[in-house]
Amino acid sequence: MTQPHVVILGGGFAGLAAARELRGAPVRITLVDRRNHHLFQPLLYQVATAALNPSDIAYPIRSVLRRQENVRTLLAKAQSIDVERKAVVLADGELAYDFLIVATGATHSYFGRDDWAAWAPGLKSIEDALEIRNRVLSAYEAAEAEPDPARVRELLTFVVVGGGPTGVELAGALIEIGRQTVARDFRSFDPRSLRVVLIEGSPRLLPPFDPKLSAEAERELQKLGVEVITGVHVTRIDSDGVGYGAEEIRARTVLWAAGVAASPLGRTLGATTDRAGRVQVLPDLTVPGHPEVLVAGDLISLQFDGRPVPGVAPAAVQAGRHAAKNVRRALSGERLQAFRYRDKGSLATVGRAAAVAQFGRFRIAGLVAWWLWWVVHIFYLIGYRNRLAVMIGWAWQYFAFSRGARLITGRAWSPTASRDVPSDPGADPAVSGAPPGTADAG
Amino acid sequence: MTQPHVVILGGGFAGLAAARELRGAPVRITLVDRRNHHLFQPLLYQVATAALNPSDIAYPIRSVLRRQENVRTLLAKAQSIDVERKAVVLADGELAYDFLIVATGATHSYFGRDDWAAWAPGLKSIEDALEIRNRVLSAYEAAEAEPDPARVRELLTFVVVGGGPTGVELAGALIEIGRQTVARDFRSFDPRSLRVVLIEGSPRLLPPFDPKLSAEAERELQKLGVEVITGVHVTRIDSDGVGYGAEEIRARTVLWAAGVAASPLGRTLGATTDRAGRVQVLPDLTVPGHPEVLVAGDLISLQFDGRPVPGVAPAAVQAGRHAAKNVRRALSGERLQAFRYRDKGSLATVGRAAAVAQFGRFRIAGLVAWWLWWVVHIFYLIGYRNRLAVMIGWAWQYFAFSRGARLITGRAWSPTASRDVPSDPGADPAVSGAPPGTADAG
Repeated sequence: MTQPHVVILGGGFAGLAAARELRGAPVRITLVDRRNHHLFQPLLYQVATAALNPSDIAYPIRSVLRRQENVRTLLAKAQSIDVERKAVVLADGELAYDFLIVATGATHSYFGRDDWAAWAPGLKSIEDALEIRNRVLSAYEAAEAEPDPARVRELLTFVVVGGGPTGVELAGALIEIGRQTVARDFRSFDPRSLRVVLIEGSPRLLPPFDPKLSAEAERELQKLGVEVITGVHVTRIDSDGVGYGAEEIRARTVLWAAGVAASPLGRTLGATTDRAGRVQVLPDLTVPGHPEVLVAGDLISLQFDGRPVPGVAPAAVQAGRHAAKNVRRALSGERLQAFRYRDKGSLATVGRAAAVAQFGRFRIAGLVAWWLWWVVHIFYLIGYRNRLAVMIGWAWQYFAFSRGARLITGRAWSPTASRDVPSDPGADPAVSGAPPGTADAG
Repeated sequence: MTQPHVVILGGGFAGLAAARELRGAPVRITLVDRRNHHLFQPLLYQVATAALNPSDIAYPIRSVLRRQENVRTLLAKAQSIDVERKAVVLADGELAYDFLIVATGATHSYFGRDDWAAWAPGLKSIEDALEIRNRVLSAYEAAEAEPDPARVRELLTFVVVGGGPTGVELAGALIEIGRQTVARDFRSFDPRSLRVVLIEGSPRLLPPFDPKLSAEAERELQKLGVEVITGVHVTRIDSDGVGYGAEEIRARTVLWAAGVAASPLGRTLGATTDRAGRVQVLPDLTVPGHPEVLVAGDLISLQFDGRPVPGVAPAAVQAGRHAAKNVRRALSGERLQAFRYRDKGSLATVGRAAAVAQFGRFRIAGLVAWWLWWVVHIFYLIGYRNRLAVMIGWAWQYFAFSRGARLITGRAWSPTASRDVPSDPGADPAVSGAPPGTADAG
């Protein structure tokens, strides 16, 4: 007799947790992901800011599941789901299922302004992080060769749009790079001319946190030298920089840490979706009318205790596990149970030695919160080796004020190239030729 | 009074050695490279085979030279050299020099068959290494999803063209990946069906080494399971594999470790160049008729003691230093001196615990040579942090039979895509959809 086939789409926090929860269950599992690696997204900004290597925070999915014999991992892209025929449509074939767990997550959204994507990359994948790393380092390289002071100022202005945890962490790391690490390597400009601007649409940073911690994070950022602008909406992003209302910030490097859009796969399930494309699931995480289809992770739209389940890693892990448990219940003829989200608290770091943390009524900020952030993130990283490599990388960076992964690789980004159209992906890094007399050393 | 301006083109072994040799000299130095990092090329194959991270073997040039105050580093691409006007032409401007040291090295050459490049990537840059890593890992992923056994065999056949040190090292590492690391993660195929074939045109591997060591390296490779074919010339490389004479090896992954072509910049110096484009310099490393233009590194064509100076890292370091010393001599009115190459020996590793080494009359092979290889390479790596990270990465890999950097990132490579044209750079990894009944576990 063939065992029931459980297909899990997505190898992120929710998908992996679901697969692990089904360890030893009498099922065949196929886990499908279009990438070969699980990504520890909470630390992705550290790759973008040259502190960590990609392999420190990403790990092959099939290695994570190596010892679980009822799982098969497949590198493929799911294109749609046919809930009537119980099949996942791949680029080249189909995958029939008895149970389906959809955990394909979310990416960033430009609120309908997709033309901004070329000027303000977001941060969701390893490729995104390396693109941001290239742009930031290339801006410094171009500034070194630029004779015009006005253009140097634009090259040394970095704008982060979005004041959630990712935006706050990026802004803190950007100013550190400039003040402490990269700047020492350059000769032609004053590192103090660096500007990092963080723009948030709502009235305060870190909207899901307690207002006191928002204020604390803003104070810490300002102490580091970040300019924080809240309560304004960006209306323009192009090669000149960022505009909001009548104001303009001239900048060559803009990073996007706002808007979230759920995976388009959610819309092929036939269920109601919210504005961001998240699937409105029943409390037991199933899709209405299809008890064999469950959704977990950032793709769900669900209220718990009167508040939406947030799109954070701990919630994804919990939902993934719960979906898998409900599959076990269905197999043994039990009733499915409703998902109960336990808020384990929130953490965000601000620069070199400060963070804000919130656990129920418990709130802390500063160095102790930073150590807590550090321990929690190391602890949850998958794989012993990664933990060790990350710890060494961080320790080095902390004590030497140095960042180890400052490489410009792959497609070149030209901060000084053509001002009207996004740069030619095949172009070499264009640098204004330095006039022979401008070398300032000797 | 302005100090003389020394321009160094290239931040490889020769260029960096030249810049360092001029520390404290009464000159202004501009070091130009089109990449922001110095690359420790002898270990590049370890990035290609997922053992090391890019930043373990690459380091920002301007950080290496941070403390040397008479150097300015410029990220730019030199397009040609105007020896009459004493100027380097950049993409966007010019750089006038009093002395010029050209050290732009070499890349791989397909002997006029540039159409092979799409099917058989070479190994000279970080991007090359990541491309190779993607292809190798993608071939395993595709084999896992492939139902046709003949196609699985093609996907699990890896051909390395060129039996010099890089080819030997790549072949040894490829078989290790398959036998020990990656294979454990897959379910659908037998790891023993892996084939690694190494093809060399001359009658033996490692032509510059002693014939006994060549034989030793061949024996070690065969013990690991590599098929070694010598004395044949490849006449065809395409999507089906590799052809030589009437023979054919059907393979989806072919790597190029043959031919060398010097940087095209050499041809703009007006001097005689050899077939590979290397510049025929005078014994003092200057270009005939231009005592202010010196060449160093893989770009030189020079006989010493009746044998050509080889294109290896120690020779590049020595020539770079010598060129800088001759600049110092010219500045103080002394006569330039002829370059004397001191052969410090050769080393090549073969898989997990064997290597061959040759120092003058001293020759060793096996585990002791492997330890020697290890110590020498760690020792010469630039930067304390890199040494530590590489040592940890290697120790981990050695004791756990694991490779830490097994990520498929960036442009996808589809080993099973269209058989007629090189793959679409924008395509997703195409995998044959596995029929629902093929999951073998449970």
